[in-house]
Amino acid sequence: MTPFSARSPRVLSARKLQRRRARDQAGLFLAEGPQAVREAAGHVVELFGTAAALELHGDVVGAAGDAPVWTVTDAALDGLAETVHPQGLVAVCRALDVPLTDALARRPRLIAVLCEIRDPGNAGTVLRTADAAGAGAVVFAGDAVDPYNGKAVRSSAGSLFHLDVVRDADPLAVVKALKDGGYTVLAADGYGPVALPDAPLKNDTAWLFGSEAHGLPPELAGAADHRVRVPLYGRAESLNLAAAAAVCLYASAAEQRSHRADL
Amino acid sequence: MTPFSARSPRVLSARKLQRRRARDQAGLFLAEGPQAVREAAGHVVELFGTAAALELHGDVVGAAGDAPVWTVTDAALDGLAETVHPQGLVAVCRALDVPLTDALARRPRLIAVLCEIRDPGNAGTVLRTADAAGAGAVVFAGDAVDPYNGKAVRSSAGSLFHLDVVRDADPLAVVKALKDGGYTVLAADGYGPVALPDAPLKNDTAWLFGSEAHGLPPELAGAADHRVRVPLYGRAESLNLAAAAAVCLYASAAEQRSHRADL
Repeated sequence: MTPFSARSPRVLSARKLQRRRARDQAGLFLAEGPQAVREAAGHVVELFGTAAALELHGDVVGAAGDAPVWTVTDAALDGLAETVHPQGLVAVCRALDVPLTDALARRPRLIAVLCEIRDPGNAGTVLRTADAAGAGAVVFAGDAVDPYNGKAVRSSAGSLFHLDVVRDADPLAVVKALKDGGYTVLAADGYGPVALPDAPLKNDTAWLFGSEAHGLPPELAGAADHRVRVPLYGRAESLNLAAAAAVCLYASAAEQRSHRADL
Repeated sequence: MTPFSARSPRVLSARKLQRRRARDQAGLFLAEGPQAVREAAGHVVELFGTAAALELHGDVVGAAGDAPVWTVTDAALDGLAETVHPQGLVAVCRALDVPLTDALARRPRLIAVLCEIRDPGNAGTVLRTADAAGAGAVVFAGDAVDPYNGKAVRSSAGSLFHLDVVRDADPLAVVKALKDGGYTVLAADGYGPVALPDAPLKNDTAWLFGSEAHGLPPELAGAADHRVRVPLYGRAESLNLAAAAAVCLYASAAEQRSHRADL
């Protein structure tokens, strides 16, 4: 079969998913590169690849399951991909977010809530870090970046597919649900009264992280059980979001593991 | 006085410092925005600003000390700045790195060594995190990014001016000097045999961090006292460099502080 060109309807239709509105309407998003497509197994709706890539990455074609696999020209693949070196593969995936109640029903010990974070690279990095620290869910709350944004997907390095992703427009309702569920809710806040080494970390915990530019909205930080600061031992005025999240989430992971036999 | 235009020799000369070769030759670099210029006090050689910015940020002009202050047109400032919103100020600063022996003479308790890190954003972020964690020196070792690269300076958020910056072409010699100086040298290595919670952290410590793409060269990781991994509790295959550095440096800071009366 002749490879699909960049102007073929199927390629053009998938390419629209580079825009948020099209993703939201279709409930689909793009994942590129063999590693991401491998991780996406079970969520793939269709797979596009150059002939060379499809031959090289036979296992990835297997990961697509029953989804159709389309051979495309190099130019078509370049148009579908947002990076310079997509390694010849782009998958259309089904949105995989779940309602908060579903995520809580699985009782993750650690949850990260990203409140109104706008930078997709930051969001994806925190998702990856949360996964590494053993968090079972990441909530995108309020007017947050789209977790299916191409850069967010890439920055998450596959972690988007590893844990429960929740999208909820109302951060205060999220905090209430977490508290009602028995979670200790901690607001990461550079000016918080509790220093991280003194924070209560051993119970099931949800961390709230705000945007790098504005931090957490005061009403949201105030709704948490504690406002916790990562101590600044040197002269830096603050940590960036991804670094602060890494320190907080790993502090929780370590403390939970040193106190609990079930972890 | 008429503001300098984008084509005036002084502006053109400063603008060359956007290139690494010019920075290396002149021993000068650029810092933009009022906060960076404020932090640069003592290192400023000349300050460029729009009339509006110089009036608005009078304290920054003070930070320039005896250095000449030049009023420039908006177009000239845009050409000097690498960001879209430089807030009207760009300073030419003297390179401030010091030899490793000078940095060690001040006996910092915590040191970060960036080995062959190429991404300026990562380098600046780790510099900022190292400062926050109380590190007294950051060493750029091997064929590393230029710490005076504009993006590195911006990502450091002022921390470039807060601690000793060292540049050394020979990472193995750096490790030897650190060991001879009595430092525990720890290589951050995703495959290291020692998990971070089991690593010896209470003595004076230097952490080695490798590039995100390739990690530490094996001979360098092997030269450290221990190869230490940040545990991965979830399904992520790795942490990104900045997150791993944050977790490692803060683990050291916390452990040193819980064992030592002098911190």
